[in-house]
Amino acid sequence: MTPSVEFWFEFASTYSHVAAQRIEAVARAAGVPIVWRPFLLGPIFRQQGWNDSPFNLYPAKGAYMWKDLERQCAKHGVPFRKPSQFPRPSLLATRIALTLESSPERIGEFVRRVYLANFHDDADTTSNDVVRGVLQSMALPDGDAVLEQATSTQTKERLRARSEEAFARGVFGAPTFLIGDELYWGNDRLEDALAYCVGVRSS
Amino acid sequence: MTPSVEFWFEFASTYSHVAAQRIEAVARAAGVPIVWRPFLLGPIFRQQGWNDSPFNLYPAKGAYMWKDLERQCAKHGVPFRKPSQFPRPSLLATRIALTLESSPERIGEFVRRVYLANFHDDADTTSNDVVRGVLQSMALPDGDAVLEQATSTQTKERLRARSEEAFARGVFGAPTFLIGDELYWGNDRLEDALAYCVGVRSS
Repeated sequence: MTPSVEFWFEFASTYSHVAAQRIEAVARAAGVPIVWRPFLLGPIFRQQGWNDSPFNLYPAKGAYMWKDLERQCAKHGVPFRKPSQFPRPSLLATRIALTLESSPERIGEFVRRVYLANFHDDADTTSNDVVRGVLQSMALPDGDAVLEQATSTQTKERLRARSEEAFARGVFGAPTFLIGDELYWGNDRLEDALAYCVGVRSS
Repeated sequence: MTPSVEFWFEFASTYSHVAAQRIEAVARAAGVPIVWRPFLLGPIFRQQGWNDSPFNLYPAKGAYMWKDLERQCAKHGVPFRKPSQFPRPSLLATRIALTLESSPERIGEFVRRVYLANFHDDADTTSNDVVRGVLQSMALPDGDAVLEQATSTQTKERLRARSEEAFARGVFGAPTFLIGDELYWGNDRLEDALAYCVGVRSS
């Protein structure tokens, strides 16, 4: 029995883009199921005293991040063009992801498209129209119902609980991979997180 | 002609310990010469508004760092025990490293011993006695002359210039690997930095 890896991601996060584009292929190869966990990093950053991305607050670190991101995307074959605006938090996309998360095929596809819209096509994913356009591009038979559920009070409350859960479980950045209490932070640790799951299966 | 990799390290930095213990073996295997670059990260952190290690300022990140460090050390076969005090900046060790840096064999050995004293033996490397003890343990024929030069005004001024150079070249953390203007940050990027050097040689 292989434990699942929980993939905690935030739509504004650059390295979550890299992880989101490649997680399905590497997890499948390792035989590890994915549990998708969209959440908002903003409340956690604010508790650390940050009102903006640390990559904007610390310019030298930010300049390096864009260079490193370009290298990492090239290395992993992930499409990337630096967006004209950063960060682009996306409440609607997060709510839609929360609505779709029980369907692994649908959420993976939606999440990848939103990240590509932001980090390749430079579309303004803070705009609800842009996010609705991404959902429509999937041509789901029940697209309207998904949108309705995503904007419901119930989903709003689930998202609040989700972000509280992130904080309670020690999540401080994105992407984060969780297997029970074992936390792995950053796209660089995806392989280590999967190896941990495989190790549990073998033991 | 293979370009050298500049290895910028700070004695208080946890991930510099991992990089320092393994850099000689992996650089030799890649055929890349190392230029050792001891420097002080404190002035750069203070310019970012930090008066302590960010791993202390942000507790969730710090808790994760110790866990991740343990995993990374196990992965790379690097000895590690969590020290009882953190961080332990070491002015004298940095000055001695600066004095020894023109001799690749000597500086490598000294640097590894200081890191092991702190991150394995839990010795207080902020103490000049402890650092002098590390130097003595190497039984250099000219140990006294090294110590004298390390504490000279000239070395003090070289260290100030070194830290200014770090800032000017965009160094914001440690370890950092530099090949000209190409900057790689973190123990995780050592292999990528070496691959870049090898790529320059082949092109």
